[in-house]
Amino acid sequence: MQKVKVGIVGGTGYTGVELLRILAAHPQAEVTMITSRSEEGVALADMYPNLRGHYDLRFSVPDSAQLKTCDIVFFATPHGVAMSMAAELTDAGVKIIDLAADFRIENLTVWSKWYGMEHTEASLFDKVAYGLPEYYREQIKQAQIIANPGCYPTSTMLGALPLLKNNLVDVNNIIVDGKSGVSGAGKGANVAMLGAEMSESFKAYGVAGHRHLPEMKEKMAQIGGREVGLTFVPHLVPMIRGMENTIYATMTSEMSQAQLQELYEETYKDEPFVDVMPAGSLPETRMVKGSNMCRIAIYRPVGSSQVVVTSVIDNLVKGAAGQAVQNMNILFGIDETMGLQQVALLP
Amino acid sequence: MQKVKVGIVGGTGYTGVELLRILAAHPQAEVTMITSRSEEGVALADMYPNLRGHYDLRFSVPDSAQLKTCDIVFFATPHGVAMSMAAELTDAGVKIIDLAADFRIENLTVWSKWYGMEHTEASLFDKVAYGLPEYYREQIKQAQIIANPGCYPTSTMLGALPLLKNNLVDVNNIIVDGKSGVSGAGKGANVAMLGAEMSESFKAYGVAGHRHLPEMKEKMAQIGGREVGLTFVPHLVPMIRGMENTIYATMTSEMSQAQLQELYEETYKDEPFVDVMPAGSLPETRMVKGSNMCRIAIYRPVGSSQVVVTSVIDNLVKGAAGQAVQNMNILFGIDETMGLQQVALLP
Amino acid sequence: MQKVKVGIVGGTGYTGVELLRILAAHPQAEVTMITSRSEEGVALADMYPNLRGHYDLRFSVPDSAQLKTCDIVFFATPHGVAMSMAAELTDAGVKIIDLAADFRIENLTVWSKWYGMEHTEASLFDKVAYGLPEYYREQIKQAQIIANPGCYPTSTMLGALPLLKNNLVDVNNIIVDGKSGVSGAGKGANVAMLGAEMSESFKAYGVAGHRHLPEMKEKMAQIGGREVGLTFVPHLVPMIRGMENTIYATMTSEMSQAQLQELYEETYKDEPFVDVMPAGSLPETRMVKGSNMCRIAIYRPVGSSQVVVTSVIDNLVKGAAGQAVQNMNILFGIDETMGLQQVALLP
Amino acid sequence: MQKVKVGIVGGTGYTGVELLRILAAHPQAEVTMITSRSEEGVALADMYPNLRGHYDLRFSVPDSAQLKTCDIVFFATPHGVAMSMAAELTDAGVKIIDLAADFRIENLTVWSKWYGMEHTEASLFDKVAYGLPEYYREQIKQAQIIANPGCYPTSTMLGALPLLKNNLVDVNNIIVDGKSGVSGAGKGANVAMLGAEMSESFKAYGVAGHRHLPEMKEKMAQIGGREVGLTFVPHLVPMIRGMENTIYATMTSEMSQAQLQELYEETYKDEPFVDVMPAGSLPETRMVKGSNMCRIAIYRPVGSSQVVVTSVIDNLVKGAAGQAVQNMNILFGIDETMGLQQVALLP
Repeated sequence: MQKVKVGIVGGTGYTGVELLRILAAHPQAEVTMITSRSEEGVALADMYPNLRGHYDLRFSVPDSAQLKTCDIVFFATPHGVAMSMAAELTDAGVKIIDLAADFRIENLTVWSKWYGMEHTEASLFDKVAYGLPEYYREQIKQAQIIANPGCYPTSTMLGALPLLKNNLVDVNNIIVDGKSGVSGAGKGANVAMLGAEMSESFKAYGVAGHRHLPEMKEKMAQIGGREVGLTFVPHLVPMIRGMENTIYATMTSEMSQAQLQELYEETYKDEPFVDVMPAGSLPETRMVKGSNMCRIAIYRPVGSSQVVVTSVIDNLVKGAAGQAVQNMNILFGIDETMGLQQVALLP
Repeated sequence: MQKVKVGIVGGTGYTGVELLRILAAHPQAEVTMITSRSEEGVALADMYPNLRGHYDLRFSVPDSAQLKTCDIVFFATPHGVAMSMAAELTDAGVKIIDLAADFRIENLTVWSKWYGMEHTEASLFDKVAYGLPEYYREQIKQAQIIANPGCYPTSTMLGALPLLKNNLVDVNNIIVDGKSGVSGAGKGANVAMLGAEMSESFKAYGVAGHRHLPEMKEKMAQIGGREVGLTFVPHLVPMIRGMENTIYATMTSEMSQAQLQELYEETYKDEPFVDVMPAGSLPETRMVKGSNMCRIAIYRPVGSSQVVVTSVIDNLVKGAAGQAVQNMNILFGIDETMGLQQVALLP
Repeated sequence: MQKVKVGIVGGTGYTGVELLRILAAHPQAEVTMITSRSEEGVALADMYPNLRGHYDLRFSVPDSAQLKTCDIVFFATPHGVAMSMAAELTDAGVKIIDLAADFRIENLTVWSKWYGMEHTEASLFDKVAYGLPEYYREQIKQAQIIANPGCYPTSTMLGALPLLKNNLVDVNNIIVDGKSGVSGAGKGANVAMLGAEMSESFKAYGVAGHRHLPEMKEKMAQIGGREVGLTFVPHLVPMIRGMENTIYATMTSEMSQAQLQELYEETYKDEPFVDVMPAGSLPETRMVKGSNMCRIAIYRPVGSSQVVVTSVIDNLVKGAAGQAVQNMNILFGIDETMGLQQVALLP
Repeated sequence: MQKVKVGIVGGTGYTGVELLRILAAHPQAEVTMITSRSEEGVALADMYPNLRGHYDLRFSVPDSAQLKTCDIVFFATPHGVAMSMAAELTDAGVKIIDLAADFRIENLTVWSKWYGMEHTEASLFDKVAYGLPEYYREQIKQAQIIANPGCYPTSTMLGALPLLKNNLVDVNNIIVDGKSGVSGAGKGANVAMLGAEMSESFKAYGVAGHRHLPEMKEKMAQIGGREVGLTFVPHLVPMIRGMENTIYATMTSEMSQAQLQELYEETYKDEPFVDVMPAGSLPETRMVKGSNMCRIAIYRPVGSSQVVVTSVIDNLVKGAAGQAVQNMNILFGIDETMGLQQVALLP
């Protein structure tokens, strides 16, 4: 089989280098171009020395004609960029995976409000699938544009959706207490993300709301079949990689902890990248560091009406670049796990 | 005024060294003895080199006769030790502050269940006050034994009690998502707390329940006037010091965010160690590192029925040794802030 | 005694906030103004929440007339700023402590080469003392301008100078392997200092040379009496605060390890902020976190011609703001240790 | 080709889990047994959750008969264990790679002194090769027992040996300032390695000498052809993985920096796991995190007689398990890079 020719637009940030790390070991894909206006001509390995010896590429200026020679183009860009090039590329038969948010939310009024710009490509949405394979695999197979989910939505929905789909909880009041490592803030020069600022400290952030909230609400309603009342408070953890979400919901069913455990195991038994932890154990983010796994535990605290789900991912892998490659595999009929079976780095 | 003569039983752990750090700069207190069976004869400064030049003391074997020469004895010991010496010391007129849990829970059936031992000193409880000055100051003044609160209860209750006391929320379903640095686990040799294990990772723990839960439930009911339905999930943060609790409750009142802000500011306006953050800001644990402050923010997320409170302390200071010294100051009629006005270490 | 009126120019960086932290607890000093062009009107506590409740000041635009009302002005500014205001302020009788490098190097040709600007104030050098009290105390007492030493020079010279002064080593080949936490890089938005970049990594830097090298060479020659051949390689440690220097020199004397230990203890026995560790132990940076101490160990490795000295400081305290306050105390005849006796924060 | 059947003795520590991580992705090797007395019957994935889904194995009690069914046995054990089983296994035709120190030092008097036990297997040394492929590849091919090098020796010797082999430096006085992350201390419960103890701190250790010193001295003399005077001071870095060594030597040649650069590039141009960084750049440990690369820079500081080499590895990969797999590949005639081409995890 011929290798999939991959282009990456905007590969200078953390999701870009993570795509490159993963694709370097992918037997059926080959990165043929990577673009960055600001870094034109710079060798990949000079920007990311971990790639020394793995790539000979240099950053080039984004150019549609060139990108059309690719089978697939990943956008690891700020919001709005994929939107501006999507029509031209899809018209040329190129598939697109957007790691930003341009196609994540179908309700464009909501999207515009949270992202602060007009959405100019409403007509493309019939080619779009939301790239959470565990719940949208069939749509992904048919799509030409994949909206790669946000990290918080990925981890939260894999954890919460079995409760919603099975009508086990009060959907009016679901609480998601999210925690993310600092790589989630990207590689921009930002005083608040300096090592001297974020190390040895923990905080909630996003009191004014987080863009992943409307994304979660829309998709949870879509899959669960009902509007969801969601309170989401994200927090910053003094570590590089990793994300944990602790989800609280009020049980409306009498299901025991053992039954919930069984339900979750059954739900995900064929999913290669969702691991339901054994009863009585809880996942740690290091259990997925560098890997595409999502690990989940579910339990009912003694004396509480709540069910608690904890869900961990590596925000750069299952929360971004790994899931994007998983989507690419689905799009091209490749084994879904190809290039994604790295064991987490522990310790 | 003569200095308060202080004895410390069991000062080899983190709360012990933190007591010593704080008391070294306290103008009205003098540590006259510190005990440890295992470290008898070892100079303080050899165990804790940060104390070199500040203390000439050596660890001695705990001895009641000697301890009775103190005005106050702090117990920085495992659970059960303070209980075993409290009667003898209080009979001799010595005041006690127990940094462990022996006198935190009045319902001794509950206590025994969670701490796995019989409570042998029920009769002492009429000399006990729960050492959360912001809510028990008058009782502390009269007491001879202070049950110094747990770290999670301190941070959580300072954050949540204004809601409860003012009947603003549904008390049947309060959620506390707690996060603590690793110093909370103490100085015992424990593989799970090795730097190579806990660094760069985040996890929930305590799926089977945490001892601070019954403590919070009892005191919150005591102060709020009603039983409280509480779900508490603690998490471990990869940092040494600091604790954050994010508290979720369903509003039963129509109070606006601005009114809540005002209520909190009013509630704590005379408290030297509770700081209500300006509206729109959120506290970070580093804002209290090494200091006795608790900093709190309250807000109502848009589109949610919930009120969210975030509360940070240094688990070793306001969560342990600092609060203990605050209690000592109250017990001896010293200015409550004496020795406790260190500025947090930032960055 | 009236309090010393302190002005701070440029207090938005880490040395600025550290000065404020230390001075908040100084019984004989009062910060009466703090300037920053970019932050004019901002309350100190809004920029540095650890200072909430400790200061009522706001940043003002630097103004000579106002600054002349101070007894002393600290410059926590980029290089070149103190130089531009020093003549006017000293003419008005104001004392100056420059935490930047404007007056550290007397050889202005060397200075200009390393700092990339002309030195316009050669004539002021007769009012200048190099602010390393352990070696320049008498000069400091007489001076009007204090060149507060760099962090690497402070730690290195306190460690190495007893060897040089006593002619014990080959001065042609001294090696200083330096390590610093990231706060040393300041609070500027700098991608290389992001938490996601510097955490969990260690590196040498400054292959092209470091500005602290000519400073060390000049002062070591001045005190040791001979030119010094110095190789200095700085490294970045993934931690916020702290600096360690490991110094290697070839012994030219037959002194035993025990004799060296005795020499060091004797040298520093009256110094309040230099602590020679007991023989056989080695200092850790956490032993001085937040404190003004320098802790030093000296030993002779078995089978080696070398003597090894390890020296630790908190780069922001003894390496910057603490030493500046120590110098202020000397300038004003205050007890040298006043406001500087904080115990290091451990753990 | 049939897969190599691999046994691992003592796989509960960090080098054990790292071997398992690497071998999970090795196309030509299969782990058929793993032993641990203390963990008999425990599933691998229960001890190391990152391995969930990758292995079905359980720990078994070490048993010679069973181990003889393997083609190769890795010993990830305390010192002395490999020695006790080596004769029996090699007699049965099994190859051995010892990740401990039993066969690292040929001078058994020296070995016994540093390791505190008798060496009972002197006669096996004719089957032994020191497993640093870049300098002992031919010997490894012929050997039956591989002494996998220590982490400090690997990084130091790859950095220093080109200088020694080419007679460019004074061999009487080479200084190695080493720095290691805490995973190097292993997974034992050790108070000094607790997160609350080692985080946010830096220190030198090993004042009494480090076991890797005699190993380096012997091998450097062996390859360089002359006795080496070596001063080695190891330091502990607050990070999990990674090691950097800064090597200082006095030039006895007139070689310029450019010539040295060329010499190093030439020396290692065919080595898959040694990367000489471009002139003017310096390696960071994160550039090799999780990878088998050693990255090296060499430069001559201005105005110094010294040459400086900095060399980084991941202590658990090129410093332990990765190099062990590289040696296995050589032993079995497999492509030396097989299973070892993972890109370093960055950020």
